[in-house]
Amino acid sequence: MALFVQKFGGTSVGDLERIQRVAERIEETIRAGHQVVVVLSAMSGETDRLMRLAHEVTSHPDDRELDVLLSSGERVTIALLAMALRGRGINARSFTGRQVGIVTNSSHTRARIAKVMASPVRQALAEGVVPVVAGFQGVNERSEVTTLGRGGSDLTAVALAASLKADRCMIFTDVAGVYTADPKVVPSARKIHKLSYEEMLELASLGANVLQSRSVEFAAKYGVPVEVKSSFQEGDGTLVTHEDADMERAVVSGVAGDRNQAKITIVGVPDRPGIAADLFSAVAGASISVDMIIQNVSQGSLADISFTVPRTDLPRALPMMEKAKTELGAQTIEVKDEIAKVSIVGVGMRSHSGVASRMFQALSREGINILMISTSEIKISCVLDERDLDSAINALHQEFALNEPVQD
Amino acid sequence: MALFVQKFGGTSVGDLERIQRVAERIEETIRAGHQVVVVLSAMSGETDRLMRLAHEVTSHPDDRELDVLLSSGERVTIALLAMALRGRGINARSFTGRQVGIVTNSSHTRARIAKVMASPVRQALAEGVVPVVAGFQGVNERSEVTTLGRGGSDLTAVALAASLKADRCMIFTDVAGVYTADPKVVPSARKIHKLSYEEMLELASLGANVLQSRSVEFAAKYGVPVEVKSSFQEGDGTLVTHEDADMERAVVSGVAGDRNQAKITIVGVPDRPGIAADLFSAVAGASISVDMIIQNVSQGSLADISFTVPRTDLPRALPMMEKAKTELGAQTIEVKDEIAKVSIVGVGMRSHSGVASRMFQALSREGINILMISTSEIKISCVLDERDLDSAINALHQEFALNEPVQD
Repeated sequence: MALFVQKFGGTSVGDLERIQRVAERIEETIRAGHQVVVVLSAMSGETDRLMRLAHEVTSHPDDRELDVLLSSGERVTIALLAMALRGRGINARSFTGRQVGIVTNSSHTRARIAKVMASPVRQALAEGVVPVVAGFQGVNERSEVTTLGRGGSDLTAVALAASLKADRCMIFTDVAGVYTADPKVVPSARKIHKLSYEEMLELASLGANVLQSRSVEFAAKYGVPVEVKSSFQEGDGTLVTHEDADMERAVVSGVAGDRNQAKITIVGVPDRPGIAADLFSAVAGASISVDMIIQNVSQGSLADISFTVPRTDLPRALPMMEKAKTELGAQTIEVKDEIAKVSIVGVGMRSHSGVASRMFQALSREGINILMISTSEIKISCVLDERDLDSAINALHQEFALNEPVQD
Repeated sequence: MALFVQKFGGTSVGDLERIQRVAERIEETIRAGHQVVVVLSAMSGETDRLMRLAHEVTSHPDDRELDVLLSSGERVTIALLAMALRGRGINARSFTGRQVGIVTNSSHTRARIAKVMASPVRQALAEGVVPVVAGFQGVNERSEVTTLGRGGSDLTAVALAASLKADRCMIFTDVAGVYTADPKVVPSARKIHKLSYEEMLELASLGANVLQSRSVEFAAKYGVPVEVKSSFQEGDGTLVTHEDADMERAVVSGVAGDRNQAKITIVGVPDRPGIAADLFSAVAGASISVDMIIQNVSQGSLADISFTVPRTDLPRALPMMEKAKTELGAQTIEVKDEIAKVSIVGVGMRSHSGVASRMFQALSREGINILMISTSEIKISCVLDERDLDSAINALHQEFALNEPVQD
C-alpha cells in the first residue's frame, strides 16, 4: 500500500464530465489498495473570470480581497469532487487550505508557505477517508485567506506530499510529461522518463511550463518524487527525483527555448569601479530579474554594458535605464527585443567535457549567430535572434540524439 | 453617529453595476457620519447554479460538502464589494462567516447559530474599517463550514446587529417593505410603517416572504429594530420593532394569504383517548408541521379528524396517514388540496373585541364558505377554497380600512 498525492489542474476539473473522470481515476487507485490525497485547482477559466470581475469593479483591486475572491474557485471543485467520490461509495471529505493547515506569510496573491500542519489530513487517512484538498490557498498567522500565486496548486500538492512523506506526488496535467523539446517545434521530441530536480528546475525556469520552479525547489528540498503525467491518457509520465545512476547516461536531457527575452545595451559608460553595481541594484529593486550580463571596454575608458531581461519587463526597465544613463554619464541606450534564448540542460554535462563546443558547432553549421552565452554546471544557454530559435532547437535536439530512447 | 447593519440580498448584488450601487449607498451612509456593517448574500442565481451542479454530480449530494460548495458564493460578493468600497476611498474589509465568528451547530445546510463572537468586526469598526460580512454561513465547533438555510443572510444580519448592539438592522430587498396585503392581489395595499415583532412573525409564517421567521424571532429575542426597505429606491421601509403606542391604533395591520395548504381528513376513527397524540407524533417526527386540527365525533363513537399541512408536504404525509389508518382502524382518508388560508394580523385585536365576527361577516357577504378557523392573540385565520382567496383578501382589506394611512 502506497500513499499518493494526486493533483489535478483546472482543465482536468473543467466540467462535470471531467470531474467524474477524475473521480474514476481516484477510485481505481483506491481499489488497487493505495491511499490517495487529492489536490485540486479551480475549474479552468474560473480564476480568469473572477480576475476580470475584480478589475471591472475597480482599477486596482486590493490584494487581500483578491485572495478572498480567488479562493472561492477551489471550494467549488473540492466540494463537487468529494460529492462525486461519495456517490461512488468512497468516503471522501473536502479540506480548504485553512482546514488542511497550509500556513503562509502575508504576501497576498503570492504568499509563501511557512508551514504545513497536515494533521487533519493524516487523521482523515487514518479513518479511511480520502481527503480532497483545495490547492493554491492557505491562511496567514491571523487566519486570513492567502493564495500562493501562479502554479500554486502544484506547490500545495508537493508541500502536502512532503509533510505526509507520501511515496509520490503525481501532477496530472494536459501534457503527458516533460519532453526533450517542445513537440510543436521538434516533432520527434521524446517524453523524458526520469529527470533530476536540478534539470527540471533549469527547464522550468526556461519556460517548459509543466511544473513551476517553486514546486520543484520544494520537492528537491524535501526529496519528494514528483511525477508529471496526463490526466487524459494512461501510462507513465515524467518522474522528477534525485539524481541517480540512470540519469548519468544522458549528457543532455532536454533543449528549451525562451522567447520572453530582450537585450538592453548601455553604450559608452565611463569605466570606473562600482558602475555595474549601481546599475543593477536599481533594476533588482524593481523586481526585474536580469539574466545575462556582458561588459566590454570598447573605446578607451568607455565601456558598453549589455544585459537581458524578460521582454515583458522591458516597459518597466527602460525608464530606469534612461535615468541611469544620465546619472552615469553614458552615451546611448540600445534595445533589441527580437531575441530568444536556447538552452541545453543535463546533469551529464558535469562529467563530460566538450559539450559547449558541440553546441556552438551545431549552431554554427546552421549559420546561427550567437549573441551572448552563459553556462552553469548543468546548463548552457545562448542568446540568438528570435527568428533562429526553432532551427536552433531542432539542430541541438539532433546533435545530442535526444530522439533516441534512453535505455533504462 | 449611529451603527447600522445593512444587509443586501442576492438581487441587490446580482451584477457589477448593482454592486457599485450598493457601494454608493454605503458610501452615503458613511459620509453622513454613521458606522456600517455590511452583510451580503451570493449573487442571485448563484446558489441555484451550484445546487444544480451538485445534483448533476450525484443524486444525493452530501450535506457537509454542499455547505462547502454553497459558501463559495458569498466569498465572491464580499470580496467584490470590499474592492468597490476601497476603490471609492473607503477602508473596507471582507469577513467570511468563520472570520466574523458565527458559530453554529453541525446541522449542515440548516445550521442554527450557537453564538456570535463579533470581536473581529468590533475591532474593525474601532479601526475605522467597514466590515463586509458573508451572510448565510458559519462554522461549527470543529471549524467546519455550515450554512444557515433559506433566508440565512437575514439571520446573519440580525444576529450581528444583536451582538454589536447596532441601532438598526436594515434589510435591503427588492420590495419596498411589508404591505397591508400583497399589492398584486390588492392594488390599494399600503406599505406598513411600523410593525411589532409578533405581527411580523405571524405575517412571515403566513407567506409574506419578506423576512424569514427565524430572523424575526432572533430580532424579537434581542430587541433588534429591523427595517425592511428597497435597495432600488429611496425612502423609508417598514420598521419591525417592539410594540409601542403607535401600533395600538391599528386593530388589523395586514391581511395575508397562503396557498401552500392541504387538508387531510381521517374518517371514522374509533374515539378513544390518545388517538390524536399517536397520529400527530408520527407526522411531527417527519418534520411536517400540522397547522389547524379539528376533531368531531360524527357517528356514534367514531370521530373524524381533519388537519392542514403545507401542500408541499402532502406526498410525504399521505403514506404516513395510510399506515395510521390501518393501525387506528379508521375507515377512509380524504384529501383536499385546493384550499388556502387567509389571515388578519394585528396587535390591536387584543384590546378590541368583535374582530373575528367582522371578519366572518365580511367573508360571508362575498359568499365565501369558511372550512376551518383558528385564532391566536393577534391573528385570526380561515381556511377556504383556493379560488376564493383573492376576493377574501380584498374583502378583508376593505373591511379593516387598510388602504387608509395610519396617523403616526
